[in-house]
Amino acid sequence: MNPTLFTLLIASTSVFCGDQYLQKREKIIQDERRLSLGGNIELNDKEEAVNKCIMKHKHNELDYAFDSPQFFNFSHHFFFYRENIPNSKVFKIIKNMPKGAVLHVHDMGILGPDYLLNITYMENLYVCLEDNIQFKFSNKTPSSVCSSKWILMRDARRNTKDITEFDARLRNRFTLVVDNPDEVYPSITQSWGAFMDYFGTVAPLVSYRPVWEQYFYDTLLKFRNENIMYVEVRSILPNLYELDGTEYDQLVTAKAYRKATLKFIQDYPDFIGAKLIYAPSRKVDNATISKYLNVARRIKEDMPEFFAGFDLVGQEDLGEPLIEFAPQLAAAAGEFNYFFHAGETDWCGSTTDENLIDAVLLGAKRIGHAYALPKHPVLMREVVNKDIGLEVNIISNNVLSLVRDVRNHPLNVFLANGLPVVLSSDDPGAWEAGVLSDDYYVAFVGVASRTADLKMLKALAINSLKYSVLDSKEKTDALNRFNLRWKEFVNNFDCSSY
Amino acid sequence: MNPTLFTLLIASTSVFCGDQYLQKREKIIQDERRLSLGGNIELNDKEEAVNKCIMKHKHNELDYAFDSPQFFNFSHHFFFYRENIPNSKVFKIIKNMPKGAVLHVHDMGILGPDYLLNITYMENLYVCLEDNIQFKFSNKTPSSVCSSKWILMRDARRNTKDITEFDARLRNRFTLVVDNPDEVYPSITQSWGAFMDYFGTVAPLVSYRPVWEQYFYDTLLKFRNENIMYVEVRSILPNLYELDGTEYDQLVTAKAYRKATLKFIQDYPDFIGAKLIYAPSRKVDNATISKYLNVARRIKEDMPEFFAGFDLVGQEDLGEPLIEFAPQLAAAAGEFNYFFHAGETDWCGSTTDENLIDAVLLGAKRIGHAYALPKHPVLMREVVNKDIGLEVNIISNNVLSLVRDVRNHPLNVFLANGLPVVLSSDDPGAWEAGVLSDDYYVAFVGVASRTADLKMLKALAINSLKYSVLDSKEKTDALNRFNLRWKEFVNNFDCSSY
Repeated sequence: MNPTLFTLLIASTSVFCGDQYLQKREKIIQDERRLSLGGNIELNDKEEAVNKCIMKHKHNELDYAFDSPQFFNFSHHFFFYRENIPNSKVFKIIKNMPKGAVLHVHDMGILGPDYLLNITYMENLYVCLEDNIQFKFSNKTPSSVCSSKWILMRDARRNTKDITEFDARLRNRFTLVVDNPDEVYPSITQSWGAFMDYFGTVAPLVSYRPVWEQYFYDTLLKFRNENIMYVEVRSILPNLYELDGTEYDQLVTAKAYRKATLKFIQDYPDFIGAKLIYAPSRKVDNATISKYLNVARRIKEDMPEFFAGFDLVGQEDLGEPLIEFAPQLAAAAGEFNYFFHAGETDWCGSTTDENLIDAVLLGAKRIGHAYALPKHPVLMREVVNKDIGLEVNIISNNVLSLVRDVRNHPLNVFLANGLPVVLSSDDPGAWEAGVLSDDYYVAFVGVASRTADLKMLKALAINSLKYSVLDSKEKTDALNRFNLRWKEFVNNFDCSSY
Repeated sequence: MNPTLFTLLIASTSVFCGDQYLQKREKIIQDERRLSLGGNIELNDKEEAVNKCIMKHKHNELDYAFDSPQFFNFSHHFFFYRENIPNSKVFKIIKNMPKGAVLHVHDMGILGPDYLLNITYMENLYVCLEDNIQFKFSNKTPSSVCSSKWILMRDARRNTKDITEFDARLRNRFTLVVDNPDEVYPSITQSWGAFMDYFGTVAPLVSYRPVWEQYFYDTLLKFRNENIMYVEVRSILPNLYELDGTEYDQLVTAKAYRKATLKFIQDYPDFIGAKLIYAPSRKVDNATISKYLNVARRIKEDMPEFFAGFDLVGQEDLGEPLIEFAPQLAAAAGEFNYFFHAGETDWCGSTTDENLIDAVLLGAKRIGHAYALPKHPVLMREVVNKDIGLEVNIISNNVLSLVRDVRNHPLNVFLANGLPVVLSSDDPGAWEAGVLSDDYYVAFVGVASRTADLKMLKALAINSLKYSVLDSKEKTDALNRFNLRWKEFVNNFDCSSY
């Protein structure tokens, strides 16, 4: 063949192939977008304008993170870029955006160290200043063991030379945040150790009855301030106590919750409300599980409209696995909604990992974390078939040592497959994050595809209501109210104000 | 209802449900095992005995890693547990096990610092002792730029006060291993920077013609010593040179490879051989790609039986993306097997990430790394439908900063879904790992499910031959020879010797 002709033929074939090639390429991209969470949502013109704005800023921030990783270095621990997040324009938009509900959050880990430090200024608080600091509200010196001695917090503070420094040290007891997380928390043992210490310190502070009611009221306020309209809160339901040492049972704790919620809705009628998931420790025996279930029955009987369901908490790798309690939990499955923590682990094929199987078989309505799910293709199909909500807490999983680089978090796989993700924040106060916006930010910019846009954000917000335990009428109402607020957000959106 | 009767009924229902429950549970576990890589392999009695032994040790080591994470802490950088691996019984078994082929390995990153240090004892080597140390074999002082001055290596060594210390510092130039990887390599920029420096230092040492042939012969020996029988090696094909400055073209480099391979097979007839993947730098323009393809054509024409195919190398995030060269590569797709690096990134939705689309559309026979694949469900299906081999290099991805905790590596998802994984080692010499056994160890104990067993190991070994470019006759022969060696390994296996 004439070489010139041959060259021409190759060139023309190549151009032809090129068009076909680009079409096939675009089809794959579009197919994957449609499959991803929110991929089927159609945006109207006003939403498109918001989307254009948020995507411009998202791409700027991603490019900046790529070129100058000192600011948003998603490969590092959250504590390295935590303080930069509030400066992000994407974050500011997300903060103002209606986000629906928060469905996975633990009561004592929400409000953060400044709030807790303020509690220590209340009257009648005793403190035991030892390695694991202890608190107790009381009208007389507490009798429980203290390796130094119980003194009034007021006196302790008065005796110190430098109250600012004293309070700064005290505040450190109420947070996991440190400057050098890689050294302080080299592995899950240390991060969970500090996390458990946090709860040990905080529990006696907030379970003083007058604090408890106010604490939850203020919790709801913090959610509302981040444009959240509904919460399903997990609680171990500690026994509330009075200054004279009176202790109440768990039904009283639950009632205090409901009371605070009702007062809050009255004060803020645009807030839909809250429901309670009873979630006591998993590190117990079968007899205790039976007791738990009886407590759950009592609460459900007393306040069926406020009680959402049942879960078990604690560092999952340390047990007990769900299979230990499967007969009891299966027998009670008709009575309760289950929201089991499952698969919050890096160990594959371990009993922790197998909790995912039991969560599915026990009919969990949602699964807490489900971190290990992509390692289980059969269970992934079950999650889709049974439409089980996946409560993902991305910052929590980073801080509690499951994953350092959030871009390796399985949330990405969930989003790409359009799985029913509900984004949540677990214990945001313990790592000084906002109650949901920070998790949205990290998920949207750090984890999701560069191409994931407002459709994904809207789908996440809608999922948070869809996978709630609100009954059908409540849910319709909630979605209507959400849509109105969404419309308002979109209509009032001004890109230049960000 | 009589309460006692009710209790009895609940109890009996619960027991009945319990049986059903356990059956359903077991079915999920078995379904996932069958779906996983190797899940359909049937082991004979002798293989079962090997399996029992290896699983006993695997479970011991996993339990030990869980309880005493200082030894096998898979959440940490490979450099923290690298030196403990040779003590592992599982590792010793894996090392002795026939492993088939290595299909993703770069020539200059295989033999390691001790071997390279030895090369510096050869005659006629000049060194330029500056920040980026330079080497050149020559019969006169090299004329290329040196900020200090070129001296004979022999003189440099003679002039030093402490040769041991001098050699130790020199050796450090030939390895990425450090005691404090988290500080030295805080992100991919630093690890890839050091990795590129490594190649810059090594290239002039090994591309001296007499070294090159010996280097590759010794490479094959190292593979054989780890019970590997076949290699497809990637090379940028540097221009080989002589003492008098004569430089050869790339065909000569390729011929030197073939020569070393033929000699090796003659010396070790149990070794099947090697083939060459021409894999030059991706950081080039379209004209250079055309030149590359012409070089590939020349090599293929000259040694069709030795030439395996084409790829492009370099830190993928820094480009160029495959789409830049798609017209040229698509036009040449009928001529070459492609083995593109694609998706070796943590950035989702980036051009690097999209390389996965182009690798699939360009008809890649295998994909290098495919790290980002689980974020692409449509492409994952394409990989299965088109039966594209996935060349996974787990230790490389850890050392080069894609993932710290290997338990978060997507290999786990690939294995769980039974995807066509080919385990390989990339540049094991650069991080002082064995040429394949370390990667097998980390994959088998650190990444795969606790339940993954000898069936998975056997499937990985078979995959390495199945997804090679050996033609149908060669492949049948290779598989026969592998099966004989496997049988021998199983028949001679003595658990008590580990």
